Amino acid sequence: MGSGMATRLVNAGFPLTVWNRTALKAEPLAARGARVAGTPREVAAASEVVLTSLADPAAVTETYYGPDGVLAGTRRGAILVDLSTVAPALSKQLAVDSERAGARFLDAPVAGSIKAAEEGTLAVLVGGDRDAYDACQEIFKAIGRISYHLGPSGSGATMKLISNAMLATVVQALAEAVALGEKAGLDPAAIVEVIGASSAAAPVVKAKAAAIAERAYHPAAFTLKLMQKDLWLALSLANELTVPMPAAAVTHDMVVAANATGRSDHDFTAVTALMEQLAGVTR
Amino acid sequence: MGSGMATRLVNAGFPLTVWNRTALKAEPLAARGARVAGTPREVAAASEVVLTSLADPAAVTETYYGPDGVLAGTRRGAILVDLSTVAPALSKQLAVDSERAGARFLDAPVAGSIKAAEEGTLAVLVGGDRDAYDACQEIFKAIGRISYHLGPSGSGATMKLISNAMLATVVQALAEAVALGEKAGLDPAAIVEVIGASSAAAPVVKAKAAAIAERAYHPAAFTLKLMQKDLWLALSLANELTVPMPAAAVTHDMVVAANATGRSDHDFTAVTALMEQLAGVTR
Amino acid sequence: MGSGMATRLVNAGFPLTVWNRTALKAEPLAARGARVAGTPREVAAASEVVLTSLADPAAVTETYYGPDGVLAGTRRGAILVDLSTVAPALSKQLAVDSERAGARFLDAPVAGSIKAAEEGTLAVLVGGDRDAYDACQEIFKAIGRISYHLGPSGSGATMKLISNAMLATVVQALAEAVALGEKAGLDPAAIVEVIGASSAAAPVVKAKAAAIAERAYHPAAFTLKLMQKDLWLALSLANELTVPMPAAAVTHDMVVAANATGRSDHDFTAVTALMEQLAGVTR
Amino acid sequence: MGSGMATRLVNAGFPLTVWNRTALKAEPLAARGARVAGTPREVAAASEVVLTSLADPAAVTETYYGPDGVLAGTRRGAILVDLSTVAPALSKQLAVDSERAGARFLDAPVAGSIKAAEEGTLAVLVGGDRDAYDACQEIFKAIGRISYHLGPSGSGATMKLISNAMLATVVQALAEAVALGEKAGLDPAAIVEVIGASSAAAPVVKAKAAAIAERAYHPAAFTLKLMQKDLWLALSLANELTVPMPAAAVTHDMVVAANATGRSDHDFTAVTALMEQLAGVTR
Repeated sequence: MGSGMATRLVNAGFPLTVWNRTALKAEPLAARGARVAGTPREVAAASEVVLTSLADPAAVTETYYGPDGVLAGTRRGAILVDLSTVAPALSKQLAVDSERAGARFLDAPVAGSIKAAEEGTLAVLVGGDRDAYDACQEIFKAIGRISYHLGPSGSGATMKLISNAMLATVVQALAEAVALGEKAGLDPAAIVEVIGASSAAAPVVKAKAAAIAERAYHPAAFTLKLMQKDLWLALSLANELTVPMPAAAVTHDMVVAANATGRSDHDFTAVTALMEQLAGVTR
Repeated sequence: MGSGMATRLVNAGFPLTVWNRTALKAEPLAARGARVAGTPREVAAASEVVLTSLADPAAVTETYYGPDGVLAGTRRGAILVDLSTVAPALSKQLAVDSERAGARFLDAPVAGSIKAAEEGTLAVLVGGDRDAYDACQEIFKAIGRISYHLGPSGSGATMKLISNAMLATVVQALAEAVALGEKAGLDPAAIVEVIGASSAAAPVVKAKAAAIAERAYHPAAFTLKLMQKDLWLALSLANELTVPMPAAAVTHDMVVAANATGRSDHDFTAVTALMEQLAGVTR
Repeated sequence: MGSGMATRLVNAGFPLTVWNRTALKAEPLAARGARVAGTPREVAAASEVVLTSLADPAAVTETYYGPDGVLAGTRRGAILVDLSTVAPALSKQLAVDSERAGARFLDAPVAGSIKAAEEGTLAVLVGGDRDAYDACQEIFKAIGRISYHLGPSGSGATMKLISNAMLATVVQALAEAVALGEKAGLDPAAIVEVIGASSAAAPVVKAKAAAIAERAYHPAAFTLKLMQKDLWLALSLANELTVPMPAAAVTHDMVVAANATGRSDHDFTAVTALMEQLAGVTR
Repeated sequence: MGSGMATRLVNAGFPLTVWNRTALKAEPLAARGARVAGTPREVAAASEVVLTSLADPAAVTETYYGPDGVLAGTRRGAILVDLSTVAPALSKQLAVDSERAGARFLDAPVAGSIKAAEEGTLAVLVGGDRDAYDACQEIFKAIGRISYHLGPSGSGATMKLISNAMLATVVQALAEAVALGEKAGLDPAAIVEVIGASSAAAPVVKAKAAAIAERAYHPAAFTLKLMQKDLWLALSLANELTVPMPAAAVTHDMVVAANATGRSDHDFTAVTALMEQLAGVTR
């Protein structure tokens, strides 16, 4: 995701200092004019706005709090923007610690695929200071088709988790629909076509219709493993805030079962294959 | 639903003989030129194609099998089309009994609201003889924006149940998302807006966004009571065919709880109010 | 079940007229002095108290309502006792129709295994007329260790469904516990031993501990197929009465998945094997 | 729990040094001859075996790792025994850090009520070094009716979480059974009596039968709030180890809903009141 967004920013003319754990990944950006830094700290020292896009909470924690991390190098008055999907509690903590370092922090997870990152059609879900959000408008426009300011720190992270929990449950519903229809003798392509034209026709249904009809879950746009991680963050937030989410909870169980039975690097829509298996459907 | 469809048919120039349990309901159609019959049997005796649209399986059974029912009056070579939502087993039985009476039967439940029936934008999901389906093309075009031939008898009924189970689960997912977001401090209008622009943005999300944000579940486009009926038909089919549907099953439980706590005549999206209540959310 | 109970009755000195679909099954009873009848009607014509024990609702319906059925032959003043597990609605209907035939009807499903039937340690769950219940005390004592009068017609059937739904959910909970413990590295025998000494130690846990530890689900004391049937009757009653049962519902889904993946003639505790499989546990 | 166990130990003649956050709570023990220490560190410095019993993971972490904590004062060769319910990962970490401090660590959560702690009838579920376990036999005999050595560090913690997840699910199953039975017209006292004599009759069913029949959930033996905590620890372990637990997951959702709707200090069996409410049952 990160390199797609960085490429768009450098193409849009923003002066960019970049860092990646795997230095090689920064090379194409360097070729387009980005300066390559040796540590997140160096990036922060060189930048008014720092953007981070990382795979999981552990990487976010290390990149901000490490001895060579962002907070060690941040300028007074800077804006720090985390585009990763993490728990709202971590976002809130980063906001507090950024303020101590004289900077403002925005949690700004992005919704969309790697392809959307390259095409600049992500949705950017932002929490934190409104003025900081406004100040980042040109950046958000470069990487996304739309951005939302959703409230104080943690609001962007919260919205992202909610959104992914909803997405996972919609796909679980589709998986059950396909398994039932097939066992009743319907053609899977017809099932996804009809649902794809119904009131339940989320864009994900149309986008994945062919893959589901053909059982093609490789390569993954978003893996079952990552979906389990995001669903768990959502359920953890729900547990903390005392919110029952039974449909999301059983969806999580099916994602877990899909991961445990060898599908963890398949696309998250491969819960359909699990539900077909559990229904005794053979194509 | 029935009078919306009948009005479109008479307006499209089809010669129409109509019957309704409540005779009064047939009057506006009579005013537009439809002949009013005293029983379903009379309708059948007068028609090459017989269309039925009824509230539940009991009404369908009575209308077809009663002494003054459709099967008692059907012409040889007629096509009988049931637009109601019933179990596939009943559709299959009707097909067998129609054949005995010298007629062909199509199960053709429609997907869409009362408004869609009036506007002719329903989707017609058809099972049964392909030639009979083809012969009804003009009729399906008058009442729907699209029709599908999905396979032998029962296929239309099956697809309708699958489709409604999916719809209910999508709305349950949305209800959980809204409850979690609100308890985390987000604005409900923002939650439905963001989800309405995401990969999980089923048309139902956009159509119901304002109602959910304003907690306006009255009048109902489709009641929780009817949704429980349809979900149960879907789960019964799944039980019969040995297909596990955990997300649909817990969705059914929440629909049941909403019905048992006084919301049965609210719109089916009022599961959102239940999930807010169970999360201790107060607006 | 039936022959175990009948053997106990004949051994206890009750004069017995018996009938079985498979005539051969009645022979051992004949050898002990029972009279063998050719139809349920003949049994009814010969008896003051008629006991029926059948596999499913269809068999009950046929045995009572068929042309050679119980109701066709019943004496005025007789007591008809159905020991099968059926929906309360069917029990209530049988009570109404028995009354029309001048007899009284008790729904009296029994809880316990085939072994318990042979040993006379069943629990008899009775609904219907209190005087009829009192009049059958000696019979209930011959077949069970305890009997309960639970209320009007249907109350016994209801209690049996509730009891079996509870049993299935307890076993599902145990299956999840075993799968989690094993994947965490615990010995399955230790898991069932510790649970078998805890507050959650239902008799079923102790009775099935060895079988679960050894993965020995054959022969079945009660098959997964029959458990799906009983769970479905319970869930159907809950749907009808508008009662949400989320734990029983997902338990049903796992029982369905176990049946669909080739375990339908295994003991109902074989959901443990399914949960191990879905957890990726290999022993 | 802690003071019940400590009282039994001092009564059994063990020389005891005690510490409690609330100094007052140590007084009755001092009156019986226990020495009172000012910090956990002092307890550790004075003891060959250190026992800790704390409310939650945060308290455990602080009591072991704080500057005046157990690890700061532990003697070489000591055995540290944590009787609290925490995540296995924390137990394993404590074992590693205890070893660094020259001590051996046992995770030894106890199963049973406050009353059981006073009466010495707890079950002690132990993970860690076998020799250390053997060396603590007399202590475990003083506080419990039984102890189990379940494997390496973390095994006791794991078994406790499994056991509590099972217990919660059994009670959820009972709650659903009671709600269904009541709505069908059965007497709640009869329902719990019959289930209390069935194969699903866990000791918890019998222990709570009267309370459920009378809807008396106060005072709590174990609160819904604490059950949510323990269930969440179990589900977190399951998520980490990739084990689906759908019945435990929906049970957690109902516990959450009970907590969110004002029942958090009620006994954990008060999910029955929630399920009655959701079924529209009024007594």
